[in-house]
Amino acid sequence: MYRIGVDLGGTNIVVGIIDENNRIVAKAQRKTNAPRPAEAIFDDMADAIREAMEKLGVTKDDIRSIGVGTPGSVNKALELIEFANNLGFDNVPAYRLLRVRTGIENVYFDNDANCAALGEAVAGCGQGVKDFVMVTLGTGVGSGIIVNGKLVTGVNYAAGEMGHTVIVFGGVPCNCGRRGCWEKYSSATALISQTKDAMRLHPESKMWDVAGEFSRVNGRTAFEAAKLGDPAAKKVVNDYEAYLACGISNLINIFQPDMICVGGGIGNERENLLAPVRRIVNSEIYSIHAKKQTRIVSATLGNDAGVIGAALLDE
Amino acid sequence: MYRIGVDLGGTNIVVGIIDENNRIVAKAQRKTNAPRPAEAIFDDMADAIREAMEKLGVTKDDIRSIGVGTPGSVNKALELIEFANNLGFDNVPAYRLLRVRTGIENVYFDNDANCAALGEAVAGCGQGVKDFVMVTLGTGVGSGIIVNGKLVTGVNYAAGEMGHTVIVFGGVPCNCGRRGCWEKYSSATALISQTKDAMRLHPESKMWDVAGEFSRVNGRTAFEAAKLGDPAAKKVVNDYEAYLACGISNLINIFQPDMICVGGGIGNERENLLAPVRRIVNSEIYSIHAKKQTRIVSATLGNDAGVIGAALLDE
Repeated sequence: MYRIGVDLGGTNIVVGIIDENNRIVAKAQRKTNAPRPAEAIFDDMADAIREAMEKLGVTKDDIRSIGVGTPGSVNKALELIEFANNLGFDNVPAYRLLRVRTGIENVYFDNDANCAALGEAVAGCGQGVKDFVMVTLGTGVGSGIIVNGKLVTGVNYAAGEMGHTVIVFGGVPCNCGRRGCWEKYSSATALISQTKDAMRLHPESKMWDVAGEFSRVNGRTAFEAAKLGDPAAKKVVNDYEAYLACGISNLINIFQPDMICVGGGIGNERENLLAPVRRIVNSEIYSIHAKKQTRIVSATLGNDAGVIGAALLDE
Repeated sequence: MYRIGVDLGGTNIVVGIIDENNRIVAKAQRKTNAPRPAEAIFDDMADAIREAMEKLGVTKDDIRSIGVGTPGSVNKALELIEFANNLGFDNVPAYRLLRVRTGIENVYFDNDANCAALGEAVAGCGQGVKDFVMVTLGTGVGSGIIVNGKLVTGVNYAAGEMGHTVIVFGGVPCNCGRRGCWEKYSSATALISQTKDAMRLHPESKMWDVAGEFSRVNGRTAFEAAKLGDPAAKKVVNDYEAYLACGISNLINIFQPDMICVGGGIGNERENLLAPVRRIVNSEIYSIHAKKQTRIVSATLGNDAGVIGAALLDE
């Protein structure tokens, strides 16, 4: 039997079919073109599912389930996508829309950050791990939390918003309405803004050469200039690492998971980022003398994590 | 069948026997007199257990299990209390010490904050609730986290240290080595220190009359002076509420539990504290539009929570 995973993003709908070893064996893709009516988006999703099944040469009798990772919040009891701002969704009866278009009854939905966490925990860096947290450093700071092998979804399926925990009381205003949320200091967006602030203060910095143009500053600019020995860039990187380590230490003091997996755009810095972060975390965590410690590792599945995790939602 | 719960504290060893309705039906108590050899402490614990059993008129054939809540960290795999600073314990073979003294094989140990959470979740304010967090505002800020009916203990049994999550990056130094931990702002100790700071700045404040002497300032001083309309006291209380609400909002964004239960010395302020905290939390949480929201309530079992929770460890 095969399972289908769908990563429903703001830009693309990515469909993957996984085999019994949790490996993707067929793929298909459509543009999301949001916002448009949910019915049209689900038409294209079903079309991509058909294409992937044809590529693999299977029929719906070979498919055990379809899982979909979506932005926003899923109400599993009511079988709705309750809110998804960047899709323009408001109480969309997603389960039904997918069932009638595919003829497949077993459909599952969850938040996209949760699906990525499940994918990495089961089929990526965390294979065999029971207590696992995934942190995604992208536009925001996403997180998915697995305790005892199960996603923590909470009473309203909206748990795992570690990016919206305050680490700087009264700090930078966040879109969520609070001040000082972790994602205002540790997202790629935050790093880019910290980099630009330092460039304005330091016209002599090598960050200007690395970026070429101010408008081309990205999450790698400060890391690359720091490697060239630029002091202003080093400070940007060190400060960013300290904020990231703060949130990761918080996570460890709360959960003591087997593993924290760091993914997303900035996560691609891998050991360049994680080695210094690990040093700070190891000096900060509460259970500093415990025999067993949380491992902090890089994500391994890249963009496939969300598709694979969505396919695993039926477990 | 009955179960025995033990709250092993820095000052007292409290033993309770619970019936099948999770109600305490017999109690006995000894002084801990720590630090002294673990063997002597366990002698007195076993003695108090015998006393409680005699009071109730039961023998060990009527006892299903003994559970013990202890400060510090328990290693369940190795059956040790690994560290407990205020007992002077270092790798104490607690399970064996208790078994040989009582002749009862089924013994369980867990952290005291976890036991209190379990007690409130099962037999106190949270009866029937699956996802539950208890926050204890005492000397520190303790927390116990229950997800899907089970205590979150983490890979090294040291999870649930919400008091040692940073909410003020670079803030007040904490005993744990970090800066800006929640417990440096929301514990009873923190409130007393905030009260004293405000009194020094405001010799005209009614807090001086309420306390009588500076050395008698306690966790109620600011609340009582605020009720009398004292502006400096009101500011202390408002600031304290804001810090408490910050940590509680963090908890909700992470877990979305059914219920957060607030106990400990400052928790005794009940609605006087929780009503304003709830107002701040409701304006801050991420899933502000979700149909189901976390309830924030006062603990109901007081000091019995730890004993009852310890007795429930065999579930």
